[in-house]
Amino acid sequence: MSREGDWTTALAAPPAGEARGTLIAAYRAVRGFSERICRPLEIEDHVVQSIPEVSPPKWHLAHVTWFFETFVLAPLAPDHRPFRPAYAQLFNSYYETVGSFWPRPRRGLLSRPTVAEILRYRAHVDAAMTALLAQAPAAAWPEIAFRTVLGLHHEQQHQELLLTDIKHNLGIHPLRPAYRDDLAPPPAVAPASMDWIDHPGGLVEIGHGGAGFAYDNETPRHRVWLAPFRIASRPVTCGEYLAFVEDGGYRDPRWWLADAWVRVRDEGWRHPLHWHRGPEGWEVYTLGGVRPLAADEPVAHLSFYEADAYARWAGARLPTEAEWEVVARETAPEGNFVEDDHLHPVPVAEGAGVRGIWGQVWEWTASPYRPYPGFRPLAGSLGEYNAKFMANQMVCRGGSCLTSRTHVRATYRNFFYGHDRWQMTGMRLAADP
Amino acid sequence: MSREGDWTTALAAPPAGEARGTLIAAYRAVRGFSERICRPLEIEDHVVQSIPEVSPPKWHLAHVTWFFETFVLAPLAPDHRPFRPAYAQLFNSYYETVGSFWPRPRRGLLSRPTVAEILRYRAHVDAAMTALLAQAPAAAWPEIAFRTVLGLHHEQQHQELLLTDIKHNLGIHPLRPAYRDDLAPPPAVAPASMDWIDHPGGLVEIGHGGAGFAYDNETPRHRVWLAPFRIASRPVTCGEYLAFVEDGGYRDPRWWLADAWVRVRDEGWRHPLHWHRGPEGWEVYTLGGVRPLAADEPVAHLSFYEADAYARWAGARLPTEAEWEVVARETAPEGNFVEDDHLHPVPVAEGAGVRGIWGQVWEWTASPYRPYPGFRPLAGSLGEYNAKFMANQMVCRGGSCLTSRTHVRATYRNFFYGHDRWQMTGMRLAADP
Amino acid sequence: MSREGDWTTALAAPPAGEARGTLIAAYRAVRGFSERICRPLEIEDHVVQSIPEVSPPKWHLAHVTWFFETFVLAPLAPDHRPFRPAYAQLFNSYYETVGSFWPRPRRGLLSRPTVAEILRYRAHVDAAMTALLAQAPAAAWPEIAFRTVLGLHHEQQHQELLLTDIKHNLGIHPLRPAYRDDLAPPPAVAPASMDWIDHPGGLVEIGHGGAGFAYDNETPRHRVWLAPFRIASRPVTCGEYLAFVEDGGYRDPRWWLADAWVRVRDEGWRHPLHWHRGPEGWEVYTLGGVRPLAADEPVAHLSFYEADAYARWAGARLPTEAEWEVVARETAPEGNFVEDDHLHPVPVAEGAGVRGIWGQVWEWTASPYRPYPGFRPLAGSLGEYNAKFMANQMVCRGGSCLTSRTHVRATYRNFFYGHDRWQMTGMRLAADP
Amino acid sequence: MSREGDWTTALAAPPAGEARGTLIAAYRAVRGFSERICRPLEIEDHVVQSIPEVSPPKWHLAHVTWFFETFVLAPLAPDHRPFRPAYAQLFNSYYETVGSFWPRPRRGLLSRPTVAEILRYRAHVDAAMTALLAQAPAAAWPEIAFRTVLGLHHEQQHQELLLTDIKHNLGIHPLRPAYRDDLAPPPAVAPASMDWIDHPGGLVEIGHGGAGFAYDNETPRHRVWLAPFRIASRPVTCGEYLAFVEDGGYRDPRWWLADAWVRVRDEGWRHPLHWHRGPEGWEVYTLGGVRPLAADEPVAHLSFYEADAYARWAGARLPTEAEWEVVARETAPEGNFVEDDHLHPVPVAEGAGVRGIWGQVWEWTASPYRPYPGFRPLAGSLGEYNAKFMANQMVCRGGSCLTSRTHVRATYRNFFYGHDRWQMTGMRLAADP
Repeated sequence: MSREGDWTTALAAPPAGEARGTLIAAYRAVRGFSERICRPLEIEDHVVQSIPEVSPPKWHLAHVTWFFETFVLAPLAPDHRPFRPAYAQLFNSYYETVGSFWPRPRRGLLSRPTVAEILRYRAHVDAAMTALLAQAPAAAWPEIAFRTVLGLHHEQQHQELLLTDIKHNLGIHPLRPAYRDDLAPPPAVAPASMDWIDHPGGLVEIGHGGAGFAYDNETPRHRVWLAPFRIASRPVTCGEYLAFVEDGGYRDPRWWLADAWVRVRDEGWRHPLHWHRGPEGWEVYTLGGVRPLAADEPVAHLSFYEADAYARWAGARLPTEAEWEVVARETAPEGNFVEDDHLHPVPVAEGAGVRGIWGQVWEWTASPYRPYPGFRPLAGSLGEYNAKFMANQMVCRGGSCLTSRTHVRATYRNFFYGHDRWQMTGMRLAADP
Repeated sequence: MSREGDWTTALAAPPAGEARGTLIAAYRAVRGFSERICRPLEIEDHVVQSIPEVSPPKWHLAHVTWFFETFVLAPLAPDHRPFRPAYAQLFNSYYETVGSFWPRPRRGLLSRPTVAEILRYRAHVDAAMTALLAQAPAAAWPEIAFRTVLGLHHEQQHQELLLTDIKHNLGIHPLRPAYRDDLAPPPAVAPASMDWIDHPGGLVEIGHGGAGFAYDNETPRHRVWLAPFRIASRPVTCGEYLAFVEDGGYRDPRWWLADAWVRVRDEGWRHPLHWHRGPEGWEVYTLGGVRPLAADEPVAHLSFYEADAYARWAGARLPTEAEWEVVARETAPEGNFVEDDHLHPVPVAEGAGVRGIWGQVWEWTASPYRPYPGFRPLAGSLGEYNAKFMANQMVCRGGSCLTSRTHVRATYRNFFYGHDRWQMTGMRLAADP
Repeated sequence: MSREGDWTTALAAPPAGEARGTLIAAYRAVRGFSERICRPLEIEDHVVQSIPEVSPPKWHLAHVTWFFETFVLAPLAPDHRPFRPAYAQLFNSYYETVGSFWPRPRRGLLSRPTVAEILRYRAHVDAAMTALLAQAPAAAWPEIAFRTVLGLHHEQQHQELLLTDIKHNLGIHPLRPAYRDDLAPPPAVAPASMDWIDHPGGLVEIGHGGAGFAYDNETPRHRVWLAPFRIASRPVTCGEYLAFVEDGGYRDPRWWLADAWVRVRDEGWRHPLHWHRGPEGWEVYTLGGVRPLAADEPVAHLSFYEADAYARWAGARLPTEAEWEVVARETAPEGNFVEDDHLHPVPVAEGAGVRGIWGQVWEWTASPYRPYPGFRPLAGSLGEYNAKFMANQMVCRGGSCLTSRTHVRATYRNFFYGHDRWQMTGMRLAADP
Repeated sequence: MSREGDWTTALAAPPAGEARGTLIAAYRAVRGFSERICRPLEIEDHVVQSIPEVSPPKWHLAHVTWFFETFVLAPLAPDHRPFRPAYAQLFNSYYETVGSFWPRPRRGLLSRPTVAEILRYRAHVDAAMTALLAQAPAAAWPEIAFRTVLGLHHEQQHQELLLTDIKHNLGIHPLRPAYRDDLAPPPAVAPASMDWIDHPGGLVEIGHGGAGFAYDNETPRHRVWLAPFRIASRPVTCGEYLAFVEDGGYRDPRWWLADAWVRVRDEGWRHPLHWHRGPEGWEVYTLGGVRPLAADEPVAHLSFYEADAYARWAGARLPTEAEWEVVARETAPEGNFVEDDHLHPVPVAEGAGVRGIWGQVWEWTASPYRPYPGFRPLAGSLGEYNAKFMANQMVCRGGSCLTSRTHVRATYRNFFYGHDRWQMTGMRLAADP
């Protein structure tokens, strides 16, 4: 997909030919990438839902399309008629104010519409969207452009979910089939050592306040007082985490929060998700199939509970999201993203300062996902996008090897429940000086 | 499929050319029918499992093949090697003594092997089976023939399950898509009136004792004392059952067994499965799509609990399996079977005596599924086929519009839990004189 | 309690002074025994409900009283007013046609009314009942007498439940406190050897047909054909059952019905309920506290599933209820009953013929609990007493060491689910000749 | 109980006679109050556990005693022997590092030890504790005093739980019996109007930093930046909350967090816990029995989810815990506490400034319960007291009408899950200026 176009600021531009062209190109690039993700799949792979958190790939392909139809075409395209009225129910994810929806845990029970039909649905909506973007009158442009950009970011989020859901669906299979066998190999690098970087703290500002696109949950920009802290120069690696596993970390309640310990016991956790003890040692299931555990790779598929327990065992803690943000924004947003086509963490190369903070793995923070001071959700149904999830979840930062490079920012807040492990989530240590 | 060939007695014959040819022809016919059932399906339809009782169609296609591989080829075909060793776990249904198996409620979580791969598996096993049947030495023939015939009956059972499972999978879909739109239309007949047929009872023999094939659970033939009884001339119709529904039958605990009433309340039963109250009246979902309720059709998709409640409301009862058997064996085994391609009950035509007792709907009896006096299960793992289910289930008799005509007998015992409703199960009344 | 009075036939007698006196005496004896059972309890012991099947002892004391109030006093005693109207809901067990009731699994959540209040309730109803029995006019007597006798049998059933429920409540306690420490010690006897007794079978009659009291589920008397069979001379002992346990019986699916095996695995069964492996060997929790396992005692607290599995392992089977009945009615109904105050099975003494078939342990039969041919439940709400439970349960016969001697008959049918283990249930083997 | 004694600072004092005397007096007062709370109960009321969150009153009485035995006597009293070794398992609440414990949801299944036995246990420990406090050598005093004070605060927490648990146990009873009928009546006051109080925000310090007792979770004192905010002059009243109920607030997903809406639907919430719609209007169940809803009382028994939804409906929000703390510490800690013996919120009297912020109801804040920057839990097993619960819960502040006046502070952090409703929890609005 296009990596250079700064389409996320198209919404601020007047609807001159250039802005229209940028957004149409971005629309095509993002939409096309969703289909490219699914191309290695068998038809059968599009249907299953291995746990309630996962959605069938064909559902993702349809839902992101429903998003454009519902929030752009229906209100803003004259004469638009829905492709199939029943899709309003089938592909609404959770927008209570839009109408009823098929229950999430039962998405994998629906064989219809077929993948072919969903691709027709996509083509139909794509034609209507590109026509709208090309012809929208100037007065309607700001709203159309904003909602289109929102829809593209939304689709990028689902692209990452597509990959983690495909991985989970195939990963629970006793044969653990590979999703692809042509992934880019990890680079040969001198792996980074683990250092502490000191930060003086003080009165800082975090959150989004500029002109480009951001989700409502990143706003408003606001002041936060930070005590001095230290942060690790790179993410925790598989080798480091293995030491915790082999020290009996999963059998010792001292390291675990009370709610975490219930999960460890009731679900029999003994190591991160997608790890297996093979006859010749530890193995990791990746989108490229099963591989021996690589000690220098950032550890992934940790829940917050596991990240928190590891940090306690290591005599450290997780960074808050404010600490993370003031550190990360000093570094260029370069890293192992989905465009690099590893689809798996790779060793962080040695170097000075903070490294591997972009891409690789979403880094769990110590911060619950709550509204920023003065937060206002988007108006109308789009206010349900982020705001209603601001309870019981924890913030992750920085994107992963499954995230689009154009998707994340230093202010970007991702969030999952403390027990969620099927995402590309890892960790970086922090500490008090 | 072939309707005439009496392949079920092939096992008794010497392995002359004719017996071999009959069995090979039967093998091809039965195996081919499974694939014909799945032909109208989309690939996606092969994958889903709407409730734990249902299996994905592709699982059925593979499991019946695994049965031949495990119980015929593996022990009896020299040099047989399994198509894929992992299938031993994936497609073992419940044979504890054969090895571990993937849990039944999670069959719908596996996208692999694909439908195409399973068809290759079928072709591989079919080639090995036909070669074995053509070349088996005389000494091995009786065991090979018996196990092959058992495997074909087993596959016929799964053909009926394929159809009821497909119906359930599509029937829970909010759009209720049709499985086929070219089903044979119901015949134009004068619908049968409901009469009572008297039977004197006495000391009778039931169960299988002859030469042809029967499952172990139909044996041994044994004596039973029957008091005089009456039995209805035809099954209960939708129109009759509707009167129960409209009389508030589902809201009145007087008609229901205690365990049944718990289901009615907890699962919100208000009418048979696959009935819906449409804007213009009652509708029934069929394999041909949604149709208005037809009053003269035998009612289907009743649980035992509903059949028992209706009978109580009607001042009658269900027949025991012995009563059913002594009545049914006096009538020719003709009726609405799967070969008639209605795939739905049709009105029973007026006439003398007992009618509609074969095909149409499996008729719930008042009899728990328990071993006959002197019962011995088959030796070895095949003893798990029937015997271990002899608790907590009720016997159904007579076959249905989804059963192969060559599959049932007067002594045939089908069985389901009292709450099961997704099968083509209906009822016939009985009474004390 | 009175052991001699044949009050169960009082209902047939005219309301002469003698019949009235017999029934009043029986009423007092039975009612008094319930309170005597609870006397060793602490107040706290009256409140708890360790599993949904168990009821708090104070609930039993109140419910049996509600039964007399609802089914005798309310309809038949002029001017009767309920002690507390709210008790109609609190102490109705399951009579849907009488009114709503507090859910069974939540009986242990109610601290009120207190034990003292319930004893006042009992005294109030006892005064009204004895007045009614003394003064009822002749025309009303048959109905009053019948319902009173029914209420006494009902209370006797709950006396056994009181003891098994107390045992379960105390038995799950980590300290396993004794209910009483003054139980009658087991007699010193030469333990019976295990012999097979042959029975010729044939056309027999079973069920209740005489003049005395019987529950509706024992009627009508009817003919059954029996094949020749053998039955064990005494119940299976703890020592015999231990051999099954130590042979790995609970780890081998071959012996178990499919539904049973699910229980064994999901609930971790490894031995009968109330057995424990102590530091010095196997122990059994009894109402008198923990004791070493006594090899010669009949084994108790087996589910049907365990009895069925043991029989299969032993190369035998369970008797049908008809087989049991024709054997048992040839022996005098003497045995180890609640009046003997062992409250635990004791070794069966050596001797000729069938022994230990009365009292000791309820013997699981191979027969599902279903209506006899021609069965009619009692009219009105009392029809809910037995009939609605005629599905999914298995018949037990013969009474136990917790049953009143005046309570059982050769035709008596007790019934529990196949997985129920908290009752005083054991087994006797049968076989085909 | 003693209201004046400043025993919470006894730990800082040298073990002079005065400090010893103060602490012994405090010990006796606090311990005595637990027993006084239980005095109106029937024995039966001590046993039940209506939901897993609730503990039986007798368990509370024993557990707080176990706390002194385990954390003071066992390590610090020479020659101490446990009253009953089995209590270590029965009355350990959740201290994994101390040993195994009986599962919390099953506390209501244990009838033993009896209430009388637990009172003997209390007397035994009280004798040992007062002897230790009187005789401890100076070197051991700081640790003994600290742990004793901690134990007293712990017991005060359980005193509030005793009252809320008793209320829940009695409140689910269909008869809703009163706990006491002699509660202090609400004062006759002019009810406070609702005003907004402005606060300028800025860089503030919160958390405990002084000499007196505080839990570890209140430390360390640290800086927080606050934006300017407004806070309501008094808690939300029943009358105000009723307007939300009657506006359909419980049926409109717009007001609810996603996790909250699942609770509303799945548990059928329609109003706060302990409210009922009676024939003559809204009623509230109180510890004094059922009363008509009083419009001017602070609303209680709200979950965080309900408080958050109400605030959104009202166009406001909840205060953060830092906002709450900087406001509350400016007001004297006077209010409706347990010593006032209303045991229910009473109308807040009109007046200037912030009112009703102490006592009355615990006020939900917008803040997740997480460690303060630089937090260190207590060493050893006592570190499990607070720290392991720092996930998925929300902070409440200010104490309630069931809290001891000597128990709370401006820095005090209470915490419950977002769905918890059985505590005396209410709310106060905040807003951005």
